[in-house]
Amino acid sequence: MDRLDLIKDLSITNDTKMVLLVLDGLGGLGLEPGGKTELETANTPNLDLLAESAALGITDPIMQGITPGSGPAHLGLFGYDPIKYRIGRGALAAAGIGFNMQENDLAARINFATADDSGLITDRRAGRIATDESSQLCTLLAKIEIRNVKIFVKPVKEHRAVVIFRGDSLSDKLSDSDPQKTGVQAKEVVALADGAKTTAVFVNEFIHKAQSILADKHPANTVLLRGFAKTPSLPQMKNVYKLNAAAIASYPMYKGLARFVGMEILQTGPTIREEFETLKTSFNEYDFFFIHIKATDSSGEDGNFAKKVKVIEEVDKNLALITSLNPDVLVVTGDHSTPAALKSHSWHPVPFLLYSKYCRFDNAKHFGETYCSKGTLGRFPAVDIMSLMLANSLRLTKYGA
Amino acid sequence: MDRLDLIKDLSITNDTKMVLLVLDGLGGLGLEPGGKTELETANTPNLDLLAESAALGITDPIMQGITPGSGPAHLGLFGYDPIKYRIGRGALAAAGIGFNMQENDLAARINFATADDSGLITDRRAGRIATDESSQLCTLLAKIEIRNVKIFVKPVKEHRAVVIFRGDSLSDKLSDSDPQKTGVQAKEVVALADGAKTTAVFVNEFIHKAQSILADKHPANTVLLRGFAKTPSLPQMKNVYKLNAAAIASYPMYKGLARFVGMEILQTGPTIREEFETLKTSFNEYDFFFIHIKATDSSGEDGNFAKKVKVIEEVDKNLALITSLNPDVLVVTGDHSTPAALKSHSWHPVPFLLYSKYCRFDNAKHFGETYCSKGTLGRFPAVDIMSLMLANSLRLTKYGA
Repeated sequence: MDRLDLIKDLSITNDTKMVLLVLDGLGGLGLEPGGKTELETANTPNLDLLAESAALGITDPIMQGITPGSGPAHLGLFGYDPIKYRIGRGALAAAGIGFNMQENDLAARINFATADDSGLITDRRAGRIATDESSQLCTLLAKIEIRNVKIFVKPVKEHRAVVIFRGDSLSDKLSDSDPQKTGVQAKEVVALADGAKTTAVFVNEFIHKAQSILADKHPANTVLLRGFAKTPSLPQMKNVYKLNAAAIASYPMYKGLARFVGMEILQTGPTIREEFETLKTSFNEYDFFFIHIKATDSSGEDGNFAKKVKVIEEVDKNLALITSLNPDVLVVTGDHSTPAALKSHSWHPVPFLLYSKYCRFDNAKHFGETYCSKGTLGRFPAVDIMSLMLANSLRLTKYGA
Repeated sequence: MDRLDLIKDLSITNDTKMVLLVLDGLGGLGLEPGGKTELETANTPNLDLLAESAALGITDPIMQGITPGSGPAHLGLFGYDPIKYRIGRGALAAAGIGFNMQENDLAARINFATADDSGLITDRRAGRIATDESSQLCTLLAKIEIRNVKIFVKPVKEHRAVVIFRGDSLSDKLSDSDPQKTGVQAKEVVALADGAKTTAVFVNEFIHKAQSILADKHPANTVLLRGFAKTPSLPQMKNVYKLNAAAIASYPMYKGLARFVGMEILQTGPTIREEFETLKTSFNEYDFFFIHIKATDSSGEDGNFAKKVKVIEEVDKNLALITSLNPDVLVVTGDHSTPAALKSHSWHPVPFLLYSKYCRFDNAKHFGETYCSKGTLGRFPAVDIMSLMLANSLRLTKYGA
């Protein structure tokens, strides 16, 4: 029995309100080995006050030592085993640019690439052409017409783009055309299941037409496709948790991930304050709110320790906008760690804080990795967060008699 | 998807060095309930200094409450799920005496035993005959000739021995001849799969010939065989982790276990200092070193608390031989607990210390069970140790986009 089956069996509705506040890449490291992390350095009087009357813990997004991407990390936060449930690269890329895939759409990542006269790939990234240039190429490719399939080609960044095919009976059981190395030809796309044969023929036709269009566009004179994926068919929060859930996020990727699990996406502004104000104005309409703050992660990826500290302090300054609403359950955590010292996502466990009337308090002095790692909730997999929130909102009935 | 499949997908190579220092049976108990353990009693200034700038935790070799043998405990340390991957008793016994099994060899544990005139087993251990005596009997049994199969019979200790058959198409899908009780006859060995029938006939022939040879050797006038096993076919460290790994151990069992997962076995002397010096001389040639210290476990098994304390202090005195090499990742832990108070392996979780530039420090005052159980790494399964070491050496790429 899947954990979601169990939770579906036990979950009930009531009129409690839950807020899951995710500071992307919250976990960190000191600038020097053993130094204070970004969160420990930040001046956070409001989070610290909350930590005094909350249960703390530290979570593993996937498992010890594994560094997650945004997709698996958020699936875990939403209670979906990130090893079992996977979102294909094409679908994730479409979500990342805010493209709202329909049920039968087929998406794939595109790399603009360079081929020599005999068709051998010489650069899988076409010299990392500027986004402006690839945007223009996408417009050209979007004009390709093949039978009744509607084709969208959208730029992502530099040589990266995404293609979405909208038609009947498209399959994602396809191999990549991207050979993942240079000095060889792009591969034919091959059907990996019987029902995928016509889709493979169609996709290869698209690629050949794209190559004709790009022939004189050196260095971007060909395309490599990979990660064919349809919209992931994930259990929906409404069914599993019986929750009316909403997402407040300003980055397309996180809206897309929330949409995949059935959350409503709320219109909001780009600042932390605007996101929190959106919570206030919508607070009566939903049971569960996922609020996503992106800048902690992006400043960590940039290696900007001071900026990440500042973003955390900005969240702290505006925290009263959330706490004044008196949610029954409030969680503050991250989806993974992004230490500025590493300039990338990392495997380190993530600080976690849960407030509810029914948790055991830690009486911690500060919300940070050190206190969290000694917290009453211990170290636990992030996939347990949703059941913990549901329990604390008294939305899970007894298991067994 | 198996955890090793995941790690294989994510692992990359670089020029970092890792050391896994295993003090066998490190975890302990006080002599009086609640007293200081062996590790807490030992005077360990160097380990304590290391603990200040390291991450501490406490590991479960298998799961809460389970006491592991050496085989499963080490498989866990090497990152192999010890419930899923098993090494048959025969193969483990062969490893334990330093017998280097070839790919198609079949091994089994032998007990010299006593049977009465009607063939009923009266003592499954032949009065625990001395090792010298059983050695002589092994020499006699090794002379048995059956077709083209080469037969090795080697003493282990007292009534215990091991037999290795080397021939074509031998199968280990065989039942035991050992009835596990007295007052009954030894069992015929039965094929448990179709392909094992000729092996069963052959093994029964070996047993009958052995009984003839031993007929006048009362009390060791028969043999009982159990745990038929071929060399375990385990994923190899080189493939899964992309590691060039070496083992430094003086006891045959641990060399055998390391060999099963594809480590190179380095020549070393019997003392702790000699083992550490072997690390120094081979440090440039490998990525990963497993160093095994046996005496912590054997003194624990002997119930010799003071001796176990002394062995730990001896490790501490020589620790600079390791730390002066500046490994990128250094782990100090045990494979399980062997409290002198219990004179045996136990289920207690095992103190764990990891140093790397990228770990969150615990600032602990002492390396011991109490600090470890409150450490920043929390309590975690030992099977996670390898992924944690690989992460800290920046050898694991991101999971998912």
